Amino acid sequence: MNSAHADLLVLGASAAGLKCAARYRRLCPDALIVVIDCTREISVGACGLPYVVSGDIDDPDALRETAFDALRDEDFFREYKGIEVRTGVRADAVDTGARTVAATVLADGTQASFSYERLMLALGAAPKVLPGVVVGSDRVRFVKTIEDARVMRGLLERGKVDTVGVVGAGFIGCEMAEAFGSMWGCSVKLIEAADQILPGMLDADMASVVQKELESKSVQVLLRSPITRIDEGDAVTIHVADGPITVDLAAVGVGVTPQAKLAVDAGIAVGSLGGIVVDEHMRTSAPDVYAAGDCVECRSAVTGKPTLAALGSLANRQGRVAADHMVGKASRFGPVARSTVVKVFDVNAAATGMTHADAVRAGIDARSVWGTFGDRAHYYPEERHMFARLVTERGTGRLVGLQVVSRGDVTRLVDVFSSVLLRGGRVEDLLDLEFAYAPPFASALDPLHHLAAMAMAQEQDGVEAVGPGEQVAAFCVDIRTPDEAGAAPWEEASVHVPMGELRARVGELPEGDLAILCEKGPRSMDVVRWLGAKRGGVRYLAGGRSFRAKDL
Amino acid sequence: MNSAHADLLVLGASAAGLKCAARYRRLCPDALIVVIDCTREISVGACGLPYVVSGDIDDPDALRETAFDALRDEDFFREYKGIEVRTGVRADAVDTGARTVAATVLADGTQASFSYERLMLALGAAPKVLPGVVVGSDRVRFVKTIEDARVMRGLLERGKVDTVGVVGAGFIGCEMAEAFGSMWGCSVKLIEAADQILPGMLDADMASVVQKELESKSVQVLLRSPITRIDEGDAVTIHVADGPITVDLAAVGVGVTPQAKLAVDAGIAVGSLGGIVVDEHMRTSAPDVYAAGDCVECRSAVTGKPTLAALGSLANRQGRVAADHMVGKASRFGPVARSTVVKVFDVNAAATGMTHADAVRAGIDARSVWGTFGDRAHYYPEERHMFARLVTERGTGRLVGLQVVSRGDVTRLVDVFSSVLLRGGRVEDLLDLEFAYAPPFASALDPLHHLAAMAMAQEQDGVEAVGPGEQVAAFCVDIRTPDEAGAAPWEEASVHVPMGELRARVGELPEGDLAILCEKGPRSMDVVRWLGAKRGGVRYLAGGRSFRAKDL
Repeated sequence: MNSAHADLLVLGASAAGLKCAARYRRLCPDALIVVIDCTREISVGACGLPYVVSGDIDDPDALRETAFDALRDEDFFREYKGIEVRTGVRADAVDTGARTVAATVLADGTQASFSYERLMLALGAAPKVLPGVVVGSDRVRFVKTIEDARVMRGLLERGKVDTVGVVGAGFIGCEMAEAFGSMWGCSVKLIEAADQILPGMLDADMASVVQKELESKSVQVLLRSPITRIDEGDAVTIHVADGPITVDLAAVGVGVTPQAKLAVDAGIAVGSLGGIVVDEHMRTSAPDVYAAGDCVECRSAVTGKPTLAALGSLANRQGRVAADHMVGKASRFGPVARSTVVKVFDVNAAATGMTHADAVRAGIDARSVWGTFGDRAHYYPEERHMFARLVTERGTGRLVGLQVVSRGDVTRLVDVFSSVLLRGGRVEDLLDLEFAYAPPFASALDPLHHLAAMAMAQEQDGVEAVGPGEQVAAFCVDIRTPDEAGAAPWEEASVHVPMGELRARVGELPEGDLAILCEKGPRSMDVVRWLGAKRGGVRYLAGGRSFRAKDL
Repeated sequence: MNSAHADLLVLGASAAGLKCAARYRRLCPDALIVVIDCTREISVGACGLPYVVSGDIDDPDALRETAFDALRDEDFFREYKGIEVRTGVRADAVDTGARTVAATVLADGTQASFSYERLMLALGAAPKVLPGVVVGSDRVRFVKTIEDARVMRGLLERGKVDTVGVVGAGFIGCEMAEAFGSMWGCSVKLIEAADQILPGMLDADMASVVQKELESKSVQVLLRSPITRIDEGDAVTIHVADGPITVDLAAVGVGVTPQAKLAVDAGIAVGSLGGIVVDEHMRTSAPDVYAAGDCVECRSAVTGKPTLAALGSLANRQGRVAADHMVGKASRFGPVARSTVVKVFDVNAAATGMTHADAVRAGIDARSVWGTFGDRAHYYPEERHMFARLVTERGTGRLVGLQVVSRGDVTRLVDVFSSVLLRGGRVEDLLDLEFAYAPPFASALDPLHHLAAMAMAQEQDGVEAVGPGEQVAAFCVDIRTPDEAGAAPWEEASVHVPMGELRARVGELPEGDLAILCEKGPRSMDVVRWLGAKRGGVRYLAGGRSFRAKDL
C-alpha cells in the first residue's frame, strides 16, 4: 500500500496520532485509516525511557507493549484496531489543495503518495540542539527513542560507563541522573544553564529541596553552567564556562521543539512559539487538516496566551478531540494548566499552572504562600512531610500555580488544584473543596484548605511571611517548645521564647522587625496575627524550620 | 469562671467548636471566648480511635496532642490560643432571648450561667442505640471516646479477648474488625443488618471486593443479620436471627445521630433528619446562634436536599465559616459531596456523591460504568490495580457519584471528582481535567478520562456493559490472548477466540446475546463497538475478568 486514499490519514504513530486513529475507528467501523511514520518502532511510551536505562524496566520493548503484553506493531494495529500503519515511511510534503501527501519509503527510497479525506498532523517534537554541540554518537545521546535507551543501557551493562554528564536539569535530566546513579552507581554530574534545577516547573526554593535529594545521592549538580561544546575522543569532554568536564557518556536533554516544518512548507499557520496553530477542535488553518500532540501550540489557562506543552497526557486527549470533531461530535480541547510530576530518587515533585518567577515574567502581579504539611493525620504512623507553594494573583486572588515536593504522594493536590485553576478559579474556591478524610490518608483539613487560608490571611489581613529561600533580615524569635528547639536547633534564631510564654514575655522583644519561627509554620502565623496587631513589622517564617532546612 | 459574659460562647470542645473559637480568636485578638464541654478529655481526633485499639497508635493521648506534642487541654487553649475552655461543664438550657446558657458543673453539681453575644452550638452526634441493646459496660462498648478505646485496649493487653463481635459494618466497624484481627489476632465476626458491608458508601459490587479482603484476613462477615439483643454473663452473647453469637467483647458502631435536644428545647429549628437547620453561614433560626459539626444538617450536592454528614473534615470547615460570618466576612459553606475513605487491612476504599442504589432510592435515573485501572504506567514496576464505579444521571450526564477500591491510592480520584461534582458537573467535564503524568505515578490517560469515555459511549453510542456483580445471561466470548486465558481461566467463558482473530472468526459465534470478556475491559469494549454495529445484543463484561474475580 504505497498509495492509498484514506478516510483518515495520520502522520505520526505516537500518542496523539494513534489515539486519533483508534478513536476514529471506534466511531467509524468501516473507514480506511492509514498511519505513516518514518521510524520502525512506533507507539513508544517514551516517558518510560529513563526506567529502561536504569534497568527498572528490563525489556525495552515493554514500552511498546500493551498491558496484555502484545507488541504494538503494524500487525497489532491491523488485527486489533483495524488500522493500517506503515512504518519506515517519511512524509515529505503535504498538498492541502489536492489533499495528498508525498512520501518516501526509507528502505528502498521509492516514492509513495497518499490521499485523504481528513489529515492528522501528529508530528511530535524534536530534542533542542545546542549551538556547537553535536549529538548522536553512542556516547553523546539524546533521550528520545528506544534505541537511545538501548545504546546507553548497553554501555552500562558492558561496564563502559563510570562517569556520566547529564546536560539539562529538566525532568528528563533529573530522571536520567537517578537512572545512572541509583542502579548503576555511576558518578553523575547534572549540568544546567539556569540557576536552579527544574526551571519552569518549580520555583528556586522548591527546586532546592529536590537538589538536596540529588546531592544526598551523590549527584553533583552544576548550575549556571551553559555548555559551549562537546568533544569526543577517548573520553567525552563537556565544555562549560568553568572548564572541561570529562565523562564516559553524555546524555543531553535540554527541552524539545515542535516539528512543524511539514506544516510550514504546506502553508499551514504556525505560531510564534514554533508550534502548529489549532482551534479548540484541533483544526489547523487548512481544510480538514488537524494537528495534535507535541507539534501544536496550546493555550495557557493562566495567561490565556499560546504556550508549548509537550506532555503525553495532553497528546492523548487532543487526539480524541480531533477524531470526535471529524465525525461531528462536539468535543473540544480547552486551555492547559501544564501539570507535571517527576520522581527524583526518593523525592517526588509535582506542579501545575505557572511558577511565581514565570508569572512575574508574564506580567502577573504574583504572590506566594508556603506550607509544610503531613500526608496523613499527624498521630498516624509513618506520616511524611510535604512542602507546598501556592501562587496567586494579588488583588484578585486568581489561582496561578501550585508546587508540591514530598517523599510521599504529590499528584493528588496538583490534580485537584488544576481542576479549579482550569476554570479560572480563585483562592476562596479552594475552601469549598471537599476531601476524603481518614487518619491513614489525610488530615481533617487539607493542605489546599490551609494554603488558601494563608493566602487570604495575606491578602485580607496583611499576615505576611518570609519565604523559605529568603534571607531573614529581622530579629528571629523561635517559639517552639524547649524539646523541639533542643532536638533541631536553628541558628537563625535570635532568641527562644516558647509560644505558651510569649504573651507574658512580649516585652522582652526588641523594637524593629521580627521574624517568628516555629517547626512548620502555623504557630508562628498565629503569633503574627495577634503580635502584628500590637506592633508592625512582624512576619512568620513560611513552612517553619522544616522547610528552611529542606528537612523532608 | 462559673459565669461569664462571652463575646463568643461555644458549646462543645471538638472539631467544629474549637475551630470556630480559634478562627474567631485570630480575627478578634481581644474578644472573650469561652468554650464549655461536659467531658474532661477534649479536642480528640476520634477518627484515630481504631488505631489506638489496634496499637498502631501507642499512647491514646496522642489523639489529643498537637503535631508538636502539646496536650490540647484547658491550659493549652488558654496559653496558646487565648481561649477559655471549661471541661466537665454540662450545658442544660439555652435562652435565646436572654442570650444565656444555664449549665451544671459536673464535679460538684453546682449551677453555672453564661451569657453571650454570639453562641456556637457544636453539640456533635451520639452513637445510634439499637432497640433492646444496652451498650456501655467494659465488654459491650461504642467506639466514641478515648475511654472506650482505653477499655478495649486494656482487655486486649490483658489477654481477655479471643473473640470479638463487631456490630455494624460501616467504616468504623470495618476499621475495628481490622484493629482486633490484625494486631491482636482475635477471631472477629463482623455483623451487619444490611445485605452488604459499607452500605451507603459503596454499592454492593464494590463492597464485595472489600469483603473479600476482610475474609482473606479471617474476619467472618455476617450480612442480613440485624441484632435483637446483647446479653452479658460470663461471656457476651449477641443475638441475631440465625441464633446467638458468643464473644468476649462486642464493639458497636451502627451510625450516629445528631445531638440536637438542646436546640429543640430552645425552640431552634431542627430538620426532618434530626439535625439543626443552618443556612450557608451556619446560622440557626435564632439570632446570633450558629451551629456546626455533626449536630447540623447539610445540603447534598447531588439531590439538593438536606443530608447528614458527620465528618470531621466538614466540621472544621463549618467552624471556620461560622466564625468568619460572625465578624462580617463573606465565607459560606456550600453543599456537600460526603467524600469518605477507609483502610481495611491492605485494601483502601473511597467514595463521594451517592451510590447507584441510594441514587435510585432518591428518584434519580442513575446508570453506572465500571473500570479496572492501574495506578501507574502498566510497564512500570509494582503497578497496582484499582476498581472504580462511576454513577451518572441518564440523559443529562450529571455526575452522581464515584467509588474506588484499590491496594494503592484511592483518594486522588475521589478528591478530583468531587471538585467537579460539587459544581454540578457533567460527565463530559471529566474529559477536560488535566492530570500530572509520569510513569511512576499515573497513566497517560487518567481513570477519570476512561470512565467518562465509557459513560459517554454508553449514553451516546449504546455501548453497554454487564456489571461486575451482574449475572452473565449470554454466550460469553473470552477474547484474551492464549497466555492470559491459560494463566487465569474464567469459567463463565463459553468460547475462547483471541481478539486478533475475532474479525475473521466472527461467523463462529452463535445467534443471541453475547457477552465479551477480556482481562480489564477496554478490549471487550472495543469489540462491542464494531461487533455491536453488525448485530445487536452485544455487551462487555465491565472491568473484565479482574473485577469479576475481585482480583485486586
